[in-house]
Amino acid sequence: MNFDYVQPVKIHFGKGRLQELPKVLTDFQGQGLLICSKRSIKNGLAARLFQENPQLIATFTDISENPDVTEAQECIRLIQEKEISFIVALGGGSVIDLAKVCGTLCFSEEEVAAYLGSGIALPTQRLPLIAIPTTSGTGTEVTAAAVLTNRELGKKSPIVSDNFYPDIALVDPELTLSVPKQVTANTGMDALCQAIEGYWSKGNQPICDALAIHAARLIFEHLVTTYHEPHNLEAREKMSEASLIAGLAFALPKTTSSHACSYPLTNIYGIPHGEACTLTIDYFAKVNASERLLDFAQKVGFESIDAMCEKIYDMKVAMNMRIDLKDFAISESQLADLVCLSHHPNLLNNPVEITDEILETMYRSFI
Amino acid sequence: MNFDYVQPVKIHFGKGRLQELPKVLTDFQGQGLLICSKRSIKNGLAARLFQENPQLIATFTDISENPDVTEAQECIRLIQEKEISFIVALGGGSVIDLAKVCGTLCFSEEEVAAYLGSGIALPTQRLPLIAIPTTSGTGTEVTAAAVLTNRELGKKSPIVSDNFYPDIALVDPELTLSVPKQVTANTGMDALCQAIEGYWSKGNQPICDALAIHAARLIFEHLVTTYHEPHNLEAREKMSEASLIAGLAFALPKTTSSHACSYPLTNIYGIPHGEACTLTIDYFAKVNASERLLDFAQKVGFESIDAMCEKIYDMKVAMNMRIDLKDFAISESQLADLVCLSHHPNLLNNPVEITDEILETMYRSFI
Repeated sequence: MNFDYVQPVKIHFGKGRLQELPKVLTDFQGQGLLICSKRSIKNGLAARLFQENPQLIATFTDISENPDVTEAQECIRLIQEKEISFIVALGGGSVIDLAKVCGTLCFSEEEVAAYLGSGIALPTQRLPLIAIPTTSGTGTEVTAAAVLTNRELGKKSPIVSDNFYPDIALVDPELTLSVPKQVTANTGMDALCQAIEGYWSKGNQPICDALAIHAARLIFEHLVTTYHEPHNLEAREKMSEASLIAGLAFALPKTTSSHACSYPLTNIYGIPHGEACTLTIDYFAKVNASERLLDFAQKVGFESIDAMCEKIYDMKVAMNMRIDLKDFAISESQLADLVCLSHHPNLLNNPVEITDEILETMYRSFI
Repeated sequence: MNFDYVQPVKIHFGKGRLQELPKVLTDFQGQGLLICSKRSIKNGLAARLFQENPQLIATFTDISENPDVTEAQECIRLIQEKEISFIVALGGGSVIDLAKVCGTLCFSEEEVAAYLGSGIALPTQRLPLIAIPTTSGTGTEVTAAAVLTNRELGKKSPIVSDNFYPDIALVDPELTLSVPKQVTANTGMDALCQAIEGYWSKGNQPICDALAIHAARLIFEHLVTTYHEPHNLEAREKMSEASLIAGLAFALPKTTSSHACSYPLTNIYGIPHGEACTLTIDYFAKVNASERLLDFAQKVGFESIDAMCEKIYDMKVAMNMRIDLKDFAISESQLADLVCLSHHPNLLNNPVEITDEILETMYRSFI
């Protein structure tokens, strides 16, 4: 088979390695902007970074869970005003995605909104970016994609650019110790979906296959423990490793059916992203059953695809995650909408053609 | 565990993809030099590249199996004379290694010989390099190392620099179809040693672990077939994939005991590099036996470390490779020399301390 591979991000992984940021920053000239969540301000982490890294001269924190184009525009204004020359992004997917977009679009004369879903070419210039994830699950610290929302138009889209690969991913598992239980479950299962979907994606390729197997094994072994023992640093470390490597595993092959269906489930019913992906992943594993998927199931430690699906179901139950959509009392017309809105481009990456009949039968099994 | 990861090489892999070189070269300005072996001149491959890629304006082919500093100096003279602005290296490890060195040292005022084993800092400038391997086994198309010889001083050393990562690795399995049988065996087993040694190296880390497992499985499954059926393109493709991914797997953790011992075996007794590494790999697998290595053996498809060692031994026999040193009639004093000359820095990467007693017992078992 033919494949391409590229992974330009330099990775520094390990407990306590946030303290190496000053050394990392010696490679970057000028003044830096810290983009982080308000939570990092409250818990003192931002203050620590400012103290340890005098190159950081400003902070941007006005970031919602699904960052809006107007927030990115505000951040760009700050970058231009303060003559920022590199960005440190400390946070979950929202924070790092916003930083990716702003680090490139600060060189644009167009508004951020113009780039969402339009395919307009991005500026070739970019600010260097150091990504420091505080959750385990998005993998965005090693991918070329950023998801942004235009609330005014009710639009949420990824923007993809080689410009968006961070220069450095500094992954310190200690930063994930305070992640709430249910976020740990959702983001951890999101990483599992990334690994599985990356593996069965039409865009699969052997380097990412090997990484998907590694990541999935770790998640099957350590996620439920991490959920029940949030202060178990060893388990947190394994989940940080799994999340990072799942990111490498799906960055090129991209996600498929479960991610496609997750978007309407999040947008209409407010189901968190990882939980929404996980709802359908075991169903799609049966739809996508193949020799190749059996090989995956066996390499991650199961006798069969069915045994892997049972384990996924049991993990959802054990971590208090949604296993159906019964409590939304979805009507027939809402069901039809759900099928229609699942026609996301990711669906085309699925190895088996997902017809409306398959989608309808699946959603019906959940209501 | 803490680890770092970097892999800046863009990979294009697939049958027939050499024809994409003109498209690849559109990203590079100016005039290119083709560095290749005389074999590529004879078999018409070089002529084809010149025809398809008018940016190539000169060729350098004076490269021996263990390229000497004087050859690198000659090549640099050509680069400077022709005002070359990028290099295409088409060949095995010798060709690509020479290209790596010349692409950077053409910016130096020092002689090449000054850099061998001296630790002098290399120039920061470099010419872009497109590496096109014609064998399966060196992995040099994705590593930061190049091995060079100074025959005058009887010295053979690696030079390592981030500058040496090629920009592009264009891996076309069709180019390996004409590799002679015994070279196929030796280079294929070299890749297996890289995967195994990278895995058990003290510098092991999870991304490379996952890739080592993938590469080793492929080699156990496909190498003997490739040896017996050199024109089996499917098997050749699997071995090209294995070699590339073994390269990724050992590029950072580095090799260990078997590679350390291979150097005197090659230098004194003329045993080809891959064959020399393979001679001791199953012996060291027993010395290095651990829970971690058992996990590796099981993930690549064996019940035990011993079963994996038996398979390696059987592969050596099946491919007419050396299983002892009996025909050299090694004397006691030569044995002592062999032990002494095995003290290569790679030995320090071995997970178990390799004492002179271990080396002596091992070499004695072969004579």
